[in-house]
Amino acid sequence: MDIDLVRQHVRNDPFARFLGIELLEMDEGSSKVALTVGEHMLNFHGVPHGGVIFSLADAAFAAACNSYGQAAVALNVNISFISAVPVGTRLVAEATEESLGRRTGLYRMAATTEAGDLVALCHGTAYRRNRPLMPDLD
Amino acid sequence: MDIDLVRQHVRNDPFARFLGIELLEMDEGSSKVALTVGEHMLNFHGVPHGGVIFSLADAAFAAACNSYGQAAVALNVNISFISAVPVGTRLVAEATEESLGRRTGLYRMAATTEAGDLVALCHGTAYRRNRPLMPDLD
Amino acid sequence: MDIDLVRQHVRNDPFARFLGIELLEMDEGSSKVALTVGEHMLNFHGVPHGGVIFSLADAAFAAACNSYGQAAVALNVNISFISAVPVGTRLVAEATEESLGRRTGLYRMAATTEAGDLVALCHGTAYRRNRPLMPDLD
Amino acid sequence: MDIDLVRQHVRNDPFARFLGIELLEMDEGSSKVALTVGEHMLNFHGVPHGGVIFSLADAAFAAACNSYGQAAVALNVNISFISAVPVGTRLVAEATEESLGRRTGLYRMAATTEAGDLVALCHGTAYRRNRPLMPDLD
Repeated sequence: MDIDLVRQHVRNDPFARFLGIELLEMDEGSSKVALTVGEHMLNFHGVPHGGVIFSLADAAFAAACNSYGQAAVALNVNISFISAVPVGTRLVAEATEESLGRRTGLYRMAATTEAGDLVALCHGTAYRRNRPLMPDLD
Repeated sequence: MDIDLVRQHVRNDPFARFLGIELLEMDEGSSKVALTVGEHMLNFHGVPHGGVIFSLADAAFAAACNSYGQAAVALNVNISFISAVPVGTRLVAEATEESLGRRTGLYRMAATTEAGDLVALCHGTAYRRNRPLMPDLD
Repeated sequence: MDIDLVRQHVRNDPFARFLGIELLEMDEGSSKVALTVGEHMLNFHGVPHGGVIFSLADAAFAAACNSYGQAAVALNVNISFISAVPVGTRLVAEATEESLGRRTGLYRMAATTEAGDLVALCHGTAYRRNRPLMPDLD
Repeated sequence: MDIDLVRQHVRNDPFARFLGIELLEMDEGSSKVALTVGEHMLNFHGVPHGGVIFSLADAAFAAACNSYGQAAVALNVNISFISAVPVGTRLVAEATEESLGRRTGLYRMAATTEAGDLVALCHGTAYRRNRPLMPDLD
């Protein structure tokens, strides 16, 4: 499997593009993504919407759990919101693999500011299908 | 407290507007929101992005837990993804209150198709602050 | 499959017996279990230990997700603690099936007093193995 | 506050004693506990009951979040089960603090074998009350 093909496939994610999420790194079992919080990403409290922070963490999760070129989908994600950040903040989410089995994988996603302050913490369980991520992959 | 002022405040949520999430109903402890899945809301598997479904459920959660006019924020949300739907599907998310304490509240959010098929199930814990949702609310 | 054989197998759960958990009902996709809180089940705050309440809910989960006679194991469980009860309280936990797929199932477990007051709420994802629960089944 | 008094209070937890859970370490925001899996701790699959593993992780959580001498209770815990171990295995659970606010704290509990193999991973949100853990603690 050519991991660059997988990275390219992940970069073409329509919703991630729509939100302006960038894939910074992706290796087997890990990834790093980033997003700058715009005015349109706030909620009615005036802070970044939970859905924006989740989407960023979920993008990292998806990249990490699909990084082997085997199609994987999220079964369950748990997110804890820790602190709010102002508009214009660049958020980074890193996914790391906690465990990997034949059928499931467990991932931790930490969303932080560029300075490293924790904004949210996520844990996700992925289900690994019996098929390649892309038709052309092996 | 005038619940119509709260509804209007909730309707002005910038990210919910950006995604096209509509507030259909909001009463004390409950809410119902809807969204039509667009092409730009898909992920790289070609199905609705987890972030979109979470955002819809989170919008329902926020409306329900802030419905009393007291500012409430999400501490933790757990989401289980159950089935995927095609582009163009109208998704509905309903929030119901499982329990309400002085400081915390627990909510269930079910995201379904209009036909009632379960797409995702969420549970969220809200923390209730010591201040009104809006400065003008008593 | 003979569901009475499954019920008997579930009733022989060593830890459930050790804690005094009774299986009251078990049908396809659902179950009801009960436990009376003893002095030895308290924590250092003097209220029932989270582990006791979880164990009760988990016993209901295991009964419900194994009720089809196909071996199923918990991947992930989320528990929210709602209220504390005094020693001597009889707690009931009911498991209901939120969704059932070929490989996974989602269950809700509500732990209440006999009067119906909510003590804890749980959601669990089960993974369904490719083998019967007991060697002799099917 | 005398942390040794807190450790002693935590060691007197009735349910932890009943299960044979030992408090190995406890400092501000962290703890380490251990348990040897007995025959009576198995489930009907013949592996350690989810309730036993949760109880161990929850004991670590309770020790860590109450370590400041301020009473703290669990609002929500999420547990992922990763692998099963045989009877006689000594399990260790370590709690570390992910974040600490005035009212809430977030903790990670990893349950492993003594060799360090991951058995379960937990995340818990604690609510910190306005009162000392013990009446005598100021």
